[in-house]
Amino acid sequence: MADCIFCKIIAGKIPCDKVYEDADTLAFLDINPASLGHTLVMPKVHAETLDKLNEKDLKSLIITAQKVSKAISRFSEGYNLIQNNKEVAGQIVHHVHFHIVPRNKGDGIHWSRPNPKFSEQETKQIQNKIKTLLK
Amino acid sequence: MADCIFCKIIAGKIPCDKVYEDADTLAFLDINPASLGHTLVMPKVHAETLDKLNEKDLKSLIITAQKVSKAISRFSEGYNLIQNNKEVAGQIVHHVHFHIVPRNKGDGIHWSRPNPKFSEQETKQIQNKIKTLLK
Repeated sequence: MADCIFCKIIAGKIPCDKVYEDADTLAFLDINPASLGHTLVMPKVHAETLDKLNEKDLKSLIITAQKVSKAISRFSEGYNLIQNNKEVAGQIVHHVHFHIVPRNKGDGIHWSRPNPKFSEQETKQIQNKIKTLLK
Repeated sequence: MADCIFCKIIAGKIPCDKVYEDADTLAFLDINPASLGHTLVMPKVHAETLDKLNEKDLKSLIITAQKVSKAISRFSEGYNLIQNNKEVAGQIVHHVHFHIVPRNKGDGIHWSRPNPKFSEQETKQIQNKIKTLLK
């Protein structure tokens, strides 16, 4: 897509610290890493969010994400895969991508979240809603 | 695995708020949700972390994660996929699973992270390390 920075990187018009590339996917270091080795993995085809990616590229994407995860697991105590969809969820570049973040004790990374309490009725309603949407 | 709570749920020995099931995967509501509709998606086969999952079940897992994502995108402004590997990364149950978290403005969910600065040399070293491990 013409105005997508990740499409420009994929096309070689903007440089990146590449760690892996195959026919369908590209992986490179995040320029604003949360930890050393923080890597982005993306499909070469443009899709804004995970739900919009076709099945073939979705499978290629998770295979590459696992390859990078295996590499990162060799030098870190753990790692997170994070994938943000839409600005409200923290998505900055609107081209679907996984963050793979190496984790080590005391790294200061933290998933800050509330602990909302929902009634049994609210829970049952959302369960039925998701089940129906999945049919 | 005998002492794995998710294996017990998969085997039907412990109840869950199921939203989807097929031959290879199961999805149910998180009992401690960050937002209404927070869903866990997992393979039926036991693997501790993403890097240890076989390719067939990895592909099935992301297909189901996308199905649930599509459903959740119908009633939320956005969503996160989060996958934690090892305790240091926030993994509580040692059976690989994706969190799919519906997101809406003002929901109080936040990825708190430092912004460490690394030298060009450190960046180049970690890039080469990951590249080498990926070969």
